[in-house]
Parts: sequence; C-alpha cells; structure tokens
Amino acid sequence: MTERIYNFAAGPAVLPLPVLEEVRDNLLSLPGVGMSILEISHRSKVFEEILGRAVADIKTLAGIGDDYHVLFIQGGASMQFSMVPMNLLPPTGKADYIVTGSWSKKAVKEAQKVGKVNIAASTESDGFTRVPAEGEIKLDPAAAYIHITTNNTIFGTEWRQEPDAGPVPLVADTSSDMFSRPIKVDRYGLIYAGAQKNLGPAGVTLVIIRDDLL
Amino acid sequence: MTERIYNFAAGPAVLPLPVLEEVRDNLLSLPGVGMSILEISHRSKVFEEILGRAVADIKTLAGIGDDYHVLFIQGGASMQFSMVPMNLLPPTGKADYIVTGSWSKKAVKEAQKVGKVNIAASTESDGFTRVPAEGEIKLDPAAAYIHITTNNTIFGTEWRQEPDAGPVPLVADTSSDMFSRPIKVDRYGLIYAGAQKNLGPAGVTLVIIRDDLL
Repeated sequence: MTERIYNFAAGPAVLPLPVLEEVRDNLLSLPGVGMSILEISHRSKVFEEILGRAVADIKTLAGIGDDYHVLFIQGGASMQFSMVPMNLLPPTGKADYIVTGSWSKKAVKEAQKVGKVNIAASTESDGFTRVPAEGEIKLDPAAAYIHITTNNTIFGTEWRQEPDAGPVPLVADTSSDMFSRPIKVDRYGLIYAGAQKNLGPAGVTLVIIRDDLL
Repeated sequence: MTERIYNFAAGPAVLPLPVLEEVRDNLLSLPGVGMSILEISHRSKVFEEILGRAVADIKTLAGIGDDYHVLFIQGGASMQFSMVPMNLLPPTGKADYIVTGSWSKKAVKEAQKVGKVNIAASTESDGFTRVPAEGEIKLDPAAAYIHITTNNTIFGTEWRQEPDAGPVPLVADTSSDMFSRPIKVDRYGLIYAGAQKNLGPAGVTLVIIRDDLL
C-alpha cells in the first residue's frame, strides 16, 4: 500500500487511522449483522444504536447538557445560514449579526432573504484583522438571536470569549474551531459546524440546539 | 466474517459485493494517492476525476444527451420538492402536478409554499390504485412545468408511459424506479431520484436537468 500522507488543509483533512481502519474492517458487514452500514435501513435498530452512540459521544466530549439536542444535518454549514433564520427569526422580528469575515457576510446575505437583519458590529473596515471589542457591539435586546462566527480561517481571527448575549440566544458558526478547545455550550442557543474542517469527513453538519428553541 | 444477508427492502438495500469490496480496499488510501477519499479536498484533481467518472458513467448508463447536466445533491428527493419550484416556478407562474400517491402529495404541499399549483389530475378518490388515463389529465399549456411521480411504491402503481407534456418541461420524481428500466431522458426537463432505493447508499440525490432549465 502507498505510504499514508497527512492532509492538514483547513478543509477536508486527515482522519485518525484507527477510525479509518474500523470503517474499512466493518465495510462489508457490521459486526454480527451481515449487512454493510451502506445497506441497512435508517429505521433499523442497528442504525438507531449507531446514531444514538454518536449523539451520546458528542454530548460527553462537549459536555452538552440534557436540555440540548444534537442533530446531524445535510447541506453544510451554508444551509444553516438559511435554516437558522427560517427556524428562529419570526416574520416581524429581527436578528443581530456580528460580521467578522467572509463567512459571516454569507450568513448575513442568506438571513436577509428571510427577514430583518441588524449588523450589531463589523470589523470589515479594518480588513477583518480582529473581532470587535465588547464596547463596539450594539446589541438589540429585542433580537430573536445573535449570530457570530467563532473562528475566521481566512483572516486568522477567533473569538476568545463569547459576547455577552444576555437572555438573547447566541447562535454560532463554529465550523473551523469546533472541538479545538472546550466549548461553554450553555452560553449558546444553537451551535453549528460543517464536519469536514474539524470533526470528520465532508457531508454532514453538526447542530447543537437548546430544546426551548426547537 | 458473518454470512452476508441481502436486504431487498424498498429503501436502503443490498449493494453489489464487488462495489463494497472496492470501497473497502481503497478506504485507507485511494490507489497511489496515500489518502482516503474521506480525507481529500473536494477541489482536488483526484476527487474531480472520481466525480467526473461518476457523471460520465451515469450518462452512458441512462443514455443522457450532452444537453443535460447530471448533479449530485444532498437533502433527499424531499428537498427537490422545494428546490424544483424554487428554481423553476416564476413568481407569477403556475405548475401542473399529477397526484398519484403520498409522495406526489408531499411534492404538491412544498410547491404550494413557493407558488401557484394546479392539480392536473389525481387518482386519490380511487385510493391511488392507478395512474390517470391520458383523457383525465387537464394540463395547462402555460404551466412552468408538469410534475409526476413515476412509481408509487406504497400503492404498487407506475407510469408505463410519460404523459404528453408537449413543450412544457416534464419533471419527475423517479426515486423508486430509476434505472429499473431504460428511461427516455429526452422526454424530461428534470429527473430526480433519492439514491437509497435504487442507485446506492442513502445520502445523495441524483438530478438530471436539461441545460435550458439551468
């Protein structure tokens, strides 16, 4: 076999060898099942157990409380740019967005198709070389939610600490720093992350949502 | 290893053993690449070649002309219930839907959120035990498209022949009979099918679209 190469790109990247080996070894048949995971029903007990274990493992790893749901969704973090306002922004409401890079801007653009968006802060005039200081952020206490991008790969900036959202749900795109350090999940109403940068292969998006927002 | 079991359900189902074996054998590293397909960039030359070959193979298998694009999309055939009207139904236009089962009804429900839907025919009063005869279908020559469900698994009915759509683009959900027989692709403007019933594992939806509708 060819020597393994480690892809450290800020996109689809190297996965742990033992994980790949387990996938390979079970590819033709899950242990004791006689069918591949690619062949079984999503409603089967076997698959429900695999899904349940993945959810439980993520809850343990991230210290997620029982008042949150863990969801696996298709469409990438970009689809969350639309799903978040479609689900959380009422017709007559508004949402606060803090703009710290090109992904934040894309999130704003999709939210504006759904409802009213307030730019609570932007560091674009500084070329996105930093995230805003607490005093620069003009939050609206009536906002349905506050949206941030926790890490901006292109510009090399990262929130060291969440902005003080008060009682307004904080929503975060954490695609490029998810699980790179402990997360204070209880500071957030909704966290989403495309898997391919930090969690696993491309194709699935992790969503952690507080039950009262469901 | 456990003896292989063949799942013949009308959902995720048995895949050819040589396909599974090739996936397994290349899981740790694509031949000569040193990285798994789960680790490489979607923009890499290696992945673009795999994607290009999949598109070319489907074009050959289905006899698809050069005036069609083959797309792989997430979200299932159900997301096409929304994407089709979002892309093909103009704000002041309308679309003809022929209702032959529960999946057709779901397609109608989503299209109605986007624009004006005309039920060109329905066999619901007969318990969906048949598809409508040509004379029962009231098509609108000004419709943006005509939507049919080619096979209705739950009711055991299938269109033996496409309705005469004239110049109006025919759109078909073929999730449960795609590639079970030759398709006259040039009779259609857009064909879509969730992969898990007839084509491959769950997670991808095949869309074949005529270039003038793009």
